[in-house]
Amino acid sequence: MVRWEPGAQRRLQAAALELFATRGYEQTTAAEIAAAVGLTERTFFRHFSDKREVLFYGQDQFVQVFLDGVDAAPPEASPLAVIGSALQAAASFFPDERRPLSRTRQSVIDQNPALQERELHKLAGLATTVAAALRVRGVSEPSATLAAESGATVFGIAFAQWIRPGEKRSLADIAAGVLLELQNLTAASVWPTA
Amino acid sequence: MVRWEPGAQRRLQAAALELFATRGYEQTTAAEIAAAVGLTERTFFRHFSDKREVLFYGQDQFVQVFLDGVDAAPPEASPLAVIGSALQAAASFFPDERRPLSRTRQSVIDQNPALQERELHKLAGLATTVAAALRVRGVSEPSATLAAESGATVFGIAFAQWIRPGEKRSLADIAAGVLLELQNLTAASVWPTA
Repeated sequence: MVRWEPGAQRRLQAAALELFATRGYEQTTAAEIAAAVGLTERTFFRHFSDKREVLFYGQDQFVQVFLDGVDAAPPEASPLAVIGSALQAAASFFPDERRPLSRTRQSVIDQNPALQERELHKLAGLATTVAAALRVRGVSEPSATLAAESGATVFGIAFAQWIRPGEKRSLADIAAGVLLELQNLTAASVWPTA
Repeated sequence: MVRWEPGAQRRLQAAALELFATRGYEQTTAAEIAAAVGLTERTFFRHFSDKREVLFYGQDQFVQVFLDGVDAAPPEASPLAVIGSALQAAASFFPDERRPLSRTRQSVIDQNPALQERELHKLAGLATTVAAALRVRGVSEPSATLAAESGATVFGIAFAQWIRPGEKRSLADIAAGVLLELQNLTAASVWPTA
């Protein structure tokens, strides 16, 4: 099932996801992951501190890509425009060829409450970091946190849609659509038009 | 420090929060909490399954109050108006006399990453439940999830402001202001006006 890919880390990750998805996360050991790609347990631990890290490595890079998108927005951009820019950058982190791997990863996380809590913590950390970057750009509170949290929400919804079976659109296209939907939604009056 | 309150559960909760805040959450045992209000460990476990539950009990009621606010909105209300109604109902769950207790609870959670993850999980659960209630009202996806997540975000920001030192406004007033801020924020163009 695991094709050869350059770099032990990528091969270990692909093997781990495959084993987590088929045998269960709890039931899979680091030694088994390593053996599946003809490597030793010691090599595994040279790349990952534990098997959980296989699911969460790359997180720092992802946050950096999101922040690069914040920085790419012109100084006069509205907070929402900055978030739009960050979402487009973040989407580039998930090209279509990565979709099968992302699907498998999500199915593993969905089956384990502790991993779900870790994933939520990760998204919350993203929002906190992006809010700080917005404040550096001169956005005041609560707008900075609102915009950052909204960005994380839009990303989460778009990502869930992107990995749905049969979905063909790119993550960038889906995210742009969800952001527009947020604008339509909040354009409505808070008071019912009876 | 602990005043008499009717009901062993409330007394145990107040004593627990006081001990968690002063001695540390990890360092406090159920027996010590019970002893602080002249009760036995056995009585403690009649009210709470463990000491962590002291921090999270009442969660089901809170979600119900939020949902009651969803139901209170007229059928023709926009999704955002439904969220506004839910936020006002949720705010009523936190009258001003509860503010000191909420402050202490938050300081305990802020000091413990595992409790933070639990709290995030709780807020995520709220959003999931509210999204389902919106779908029952006929709101389609992704609007239902967007509106529910935005409601949880607004609530979280308003709550953090409500427990800030010196804050005097009610949670309802703060939440209404943050919701308005979200509307202003998303009313801006996603494309910069160069």
